[in-house]
Amino acid sequence: MLKVPEHQVAGHQAGNGRLGPLVDDSGFFYKPLQSGDRGSHEVAFYTSFFSNARIPDHISKFFPKFHGTQLLEASDGSGLLPHLVLEDLTLGRANPSIMDIKIGSRTWPPQESEDYINKCLQKDRETSSITLGFRLSGLQVYGSKETGYWKPGRKSVQNLSAAEIRSILKKFVSSNTLDGMDLKPDCSFASTVYGGSNGILSQLLDLKAWFEDQTIFHFYSCSILMMFDKELALQENSPGAVIKLIDFAHVVEGGGVIDHNFLGGLCSLIKFISEILTTPDEHINEVSSNDAKNSVPA
Amino acid sequence: MLKVPEHQVAGHQAGNGRLGPLVDDSGFFYKPLQSGDRGSHEVAFYTSFFSNARIPDHISKFFPKFHGTQLLEASDGSGLLPHLVLEDLTLGRANPSIMDIKIGSRTWPPQESEDYINKCLQKDRETSSITLGFRLSGLQVYGSKETGYWKPGRKSVQNLSAAEIRSILKKFVSSNTLDGMDLKPDCSFASTVYGGSNGILSQLLDLKAWFEDQTIFHFYSCSILMMFDKELALQENSPGAVIKLIDFAHVVEGGGVIDHNFLGGLCSLIKFISEILTTPDEHINEVSSNDAKNSVPA
Repeated sequence: MLKVPEHQVAGHQAGNGRLGPLVDDSGFFYKPLQSGDRGSHEVAFYTSFFSNARIPDHISKFFPKFHGTQLLEASDGSGLLPHLVLEDLTLGRANPSIMDIKIGSRTWPPQESEDYINKCLQKDRETSSITLGFRLSGLQVYGSKETGYWKPGRKSVQNLSAAEIRSILKKFVSSNTLDGMDLKPDCSFASTVYGGSNGILSQLLDLKAWFEDQTIFHFYSCSILMMFDKELALQENSPGAVIKLIDFAHVVEGGGVIDHNFLGGLCSLIKFISEILTTPDEHINEVSSNDAKNSVPA
Repeated sequence: MLKVPEHQVAGHQAGNGRLGPLVDDSGFFYKPLQSGDRGSHEVAFYTSFFSNARIPDHISKFFPKFHGTQLLEASDGSGLLPHLVLEDLTLGRANPSIMDIKIGSRTWPPQESEDYINKCLQKDRETSSITLGFRLSGLQVYGSKETGYWKPGRKSVQNLSAAEIRSILKKFVSSNTLDGMDLKPDCSFASTVYGGSNGILSQLLDLKAWFEDQTIFHFYSCSILMMFDKELALQENSPGAVIKLIDFAHVVEGGGVIDHNFLGGLCSLIKFISEILTTPDEHINEVSSNDAKNSVPA
């Protein structure tokens, strides 16, 4: 039984006659191959990545498991379409809080067409990609059974200032995010979600160490998904915090050079998260004065 | 007695009626303030940098000492012009080998004019900035009293491939660089110039650690100068290898964000240099096949 994923925060979404990914009950995520050569490009990346003996296990675990491709009835009713068969990353999570962060100040590979480069460059400049080295593509933060999720409009989170991204990264790990825009985020999950030897910061640092060395792939327009589950945190004292890389339609060969574009953006994100852990109160004034503009819980 | 610097490898050069920096015998380097607001911008940076208590000594040592500004007869005979009074970085070096590397895949601050951004972007794409995260602006490698210096044309070194930059970084620390284009660089100075606790790699790693943390400045279009002196190496068993940052006409405030653009390019350079130390022979075939194009000793 194929259905529309419950917890997608970015990208094309199925439903109402639109084309988008589907999931089933056995933990698979079916992503329709993108048009042009982007779809085949993404298949080629997954194939190449998972057959590359130089990728260590502690890095490949950050990527969705890949189970080939499959022809499926497309979600927009347009007939049979090839789909990537991937791991459903939210499987087993009751109420995942999710953030999709597109990494890199530049989302275009140098060898792309002028039209494509100009389109991407304009978007990079209109959003926070150029300034922060990454942009938020979407997020959802779970509050409680009563309040449900905070899921701000995607457009509203793409061009955040440093103060605003700091605020959202705090709200992501706070228990009072949906209680009111004037409240200071309590960051009550910061130490278990971001911190600790299994936390998100530690995983980002593992990824960073690999990016300082690997010259196999350059990941343009690829996202880091950060996820955890508040209910898991309360039940099991472990929030199931993980990072995953997704969206590989614009990965190109590294050619013996590190991916300095992805690495720079990753280091910028790491700095924001480590600041929350080390000096959570440092930017309070800055945050509250700039906060009302974009990052108001809906 | 003001004179034209002997060892300038990049930037505007004085002489023959052209405007450029001058040096004197007491160790000062006089750089004419650049036109527009670039000159005053660079003065403002030096002033701000050296009065900032948050810059640790082990970082400020990477910057030329600053002694204010002074009105001097310009080298092009155009009359009195304000000059930055800086430390002459090559003072006391008999035959310095020097490499000027402009760091960052992007040389334009986001707040610049469209015209300026388009000009820079075009240059970044035409050179190795976009692909490698840095570009060579110029270099000189000392051979011996007989052979003198190898100083390739500046245009010829700005758009190097990964294989070519690897080759040049090897030639920079080889004793046989000027002996013939077919010779494999012997890298005989690699372990003392790049390696060791005082070597260039160690200094670059110190700089990297600072860039992972500092959010005060963003260094657009700034260069790292790598220098050493073969004669010092032979006399004193220490080549006097140092890195210095130069050219701050396009530094802007960091605004609470790390300089992910500079950091990415710096990490790319670090990867090339550490590869030479750890696996000097790995890319030999690749280097010799691509080598003849741009990086031929003159």
